[in-house]
Amino acid sequence: MVVRTAQVFREKQNINLLTEHRAEAIDPARRTVSGSTDDGRAFEYPYDKLLIATGSAAIKPDADGYDLPGVVVLKNLEDGREIKKLLKENQVRKAVIIGMGYIALEMCESLVHLNIAVDMVKPNPVFLPWLEPSLARVVQDELTARGVGVHAGYAVNRIAKSGDCLEVQCEGLTLSADMVLVGIGVKPCSGIAADAGLELSTNQSIAVDRGLKTSDNNIYAAGDCADAYHVVTGEKTWIPLALRANRAGWAAADNIIGKQASLDGVAGTSVFRVLNCEVARTGLSAAEANEAGFEAVENVIQSGSRAHSYGPGHPIWVNLIGDKKSGRLLGAQMVGKEGVAHRINGPAVALHSRMTVAQYSQTDLAYAPPFGPTWDPTLVAANQLLKRL
Amino acid sequence: MVVRTAQVFREKQNINLLTEHRAEAIDPARRTVSGSTDDGRAFEYPYDKLLIATGSAAIKPDADGYDLPGVVVLKNLEDGREIKKLLKENQVRKAVIIGMGYIALEMCESLVHLNIAVDMVKPNPVFLPWLEPSLARVVQDELTARGVGVHAGYAVNRIAKSGDCLEVQCEGLTLSADMVLVGIGVKPCSGIAADAGLELSTNQSIAVDRGLKTSDNNIYAAGDCADAYHVVTGEKTWIPLALRANRAGWAAADNIIGKQASLDGVAGTSVFRVLNCEVARTGLSAAEANEAGFEAVENVIQSGSRAHSYGPGHPIWVNLIGDKKSGRLLGAQMVGKEGVAHRINGPAVALHSRMTVAQYSQTDLAYAPPFGPTWDPTLVAANQLLKRL
Repeated sequence: MVVRTAQVFREKQNINLLTEHRAEAIDPARRTVSGSTDDGRAFEYPYDKLLIATGSAAIKPDADGYDLPGVVVLKNLEDGREIKKLLKENQVRKAVIIGMGYIALEMCESLVHLNIAVDMVKPNPVFLPWLEPSLARVVQDELTARGVGVHAGYAVNRIAKSGDCLEVQCEGLTLSADMVLVGIGVKPCSGIAADAGLELSTNQSIAVDRGLKTSDNNIYAAGDCADAYHVVTGEKTWIPLALRANRAGWAAADNIIGKQASLDGVAGTSVFRVLNCEVARTGLSAAEANEAGFEAVENVIQSGSRAHSYGPGHPIWVNLIGDKKSGRLLGAQMVGKEGVAHRINGPAVALHSRMTVAQYSQTDLAYAPPFGPTWDPTLVAANQLLKRL
Repeated sequence: MVVRTAQVFREKQNINLLTEHRAEAIDPARRTVSGSTDDGRAFEYPYDKLLIATGSAAIKPDADGYDLPGVVVLKNLEDGREIKKLLKENQVRKAVIIGMGYIALEMCESLVHLNIAVDMVKPNPVFLPWLEPSLARVVQDELTARGVGVHAGYAVNRIAKSGDCLEVQCEGLTLSADMVLVGIGVKPCSGIAADAGLELSTNQSIAVDRGLKTSDNNIYAAGDCADAYHVVTGEKTWIPLALRANRAGWAAADNIIGKQASLDGVAGTSVFRVLNCEVARTGLSAAEANEAGFEAVENVIQSGSRAHSYGPGHPIWVNLIGDKKSGRLLGAQMVGKEGVAHRINGPAVALHSRMTVAQYSQTDLAYAPPFGPTWDPTLVAANQLLKRL
């Protein structure tokens, strides 16, 4: 989210920033972008090099009731302000969140902290499908222990008004709410690129090379609208997260002005906190690894966030995924109350280095009693996984 | 510290554990270990393979007053018990700590938490010489802000009794204390190895190969008594820390029973907490790097422990050290109130992979607002260091 005003761009950076201008078409042959302004004038601008940074948009199904007042998404600053206004002006006592991804879970935490009763609902009966089931169970138990209703396996048929409330209606389940948050993911805003004949990629994102160039020599794309290489599979992937979008922006700008920036790719590293759980992952899940042609072996260990000598810490669960054929480390997943978030970075760097599990198991990681056991939980996990590879 | 009783070793693991037996000599030609028991009997045992795991001993100078009651070291469980007893039975209101290393600083924290006034003293005028000066300053300021006297640049001439108190006497400085902790480091217990003609290495540690074998084919050494390879320099080093000692023990045992364990080496990763500071390092300092033949360039950045949007976090200072000639990442140092300890593991893994600063700067590290800015502080540091390489 850019929190600089248009004026700063114009006056301090000498960028001709055109707000209220909707770009509607790219003509790659003539090298022009055309569209219309909010007050109805048509425009056309020529370019030498073009950067598409259209981002992604929250998915909001075209079904009954999703346009009712009180039904919101959270993607940009405006959405956040609308939610804040809603919470301030209405007496929101009950909220339903449709979806159980990062944004849905982070919003769940925020609403619980505001003493709002939260129900979460989604069609897939598996709570966090990319997470090893016993780790997902830890997160789900934390939610239910805090009174959150977790209704996995219910597709929403419609949202309806019922008196002063909203009703989220599923087959065999109806949830009542003062506010409904739709958090079922985002999709790349690639329509203008597709219309211009640019090559699309996974999830309809804009296909770019390691230098962020699209299938047209003079057009670059960066951010949530574009794809990326996955460092584990070497294949294209679409993972709309902040760091890789930000990094792609810098690299695209470098290349547009004639530098030679090339991006290694993404490892799919992410972390979120929900209530007292830190949840982190990097690389592939076992299922994703098998799908990518690896022979995935995974192994879960339980360790602790502190040394025994240091008094009670909290359990940390680590799942490491390795390749039976090559011994390579393919992914890591972690859940715990503390000490999880930054611990995922060790395995993440290992993925960039294409390390084997054996090599990772030899790394010299930090130890002091307040911060973990002598063998870092990820090392314990590596030692155990090695026995199964 | 092993907290299992001798009986467990004997009965559950079928190990003929001989306590009260002092090993005094190794005869590599005859393959025997001889010595005497506490009750005066001589013994001699033959071996096929021998493991020396004699550890290290706290350094206690042979100077006046270091043997006075109330002058203690902290190396093993017995030392810890003695200190606890001293604190319980005497009215310890003031303590002097000689030395400013990890143990000295961790003990400082413990004593401050017990409301004991602490003075620290050492001959080197530089507070933490391996840490970049501006980072060392953050730690020193934290100590002085909490009332700890930091007296760097004073060699202790003697400790003397003065009434009910102890006096630590230096040139131009006399510190009064109820207890004096000598925390000036440890030395490897390698005497028995040296006497047997085994090759010694840096700091008089026992020289071992990557399989923990000494210069004698039938003798292994592991733990604080033995040396190790440094993954950055490729040279021998002696870094007495828990993880690498523990790991060496496992590898030595594997090799003694005929397996083929080979250790990559140590990166010198360490972390400690003192009061509200987390201090972490991995790899080489700039001075160590230059000494090892690199052309070290270092750069300090200040970042934060959380995203701006998440409200007040705490500053994190990162110093990265790179090689001007090869672009290789050589070391990382970090100080801050939170979010430091596990963050050092990313750079540590990068050192094991011999990554360049440019490669590290491309790694996909975890981001979520509660845990850091979009660009992890170590990535910000890498991006900045790149401009100077």
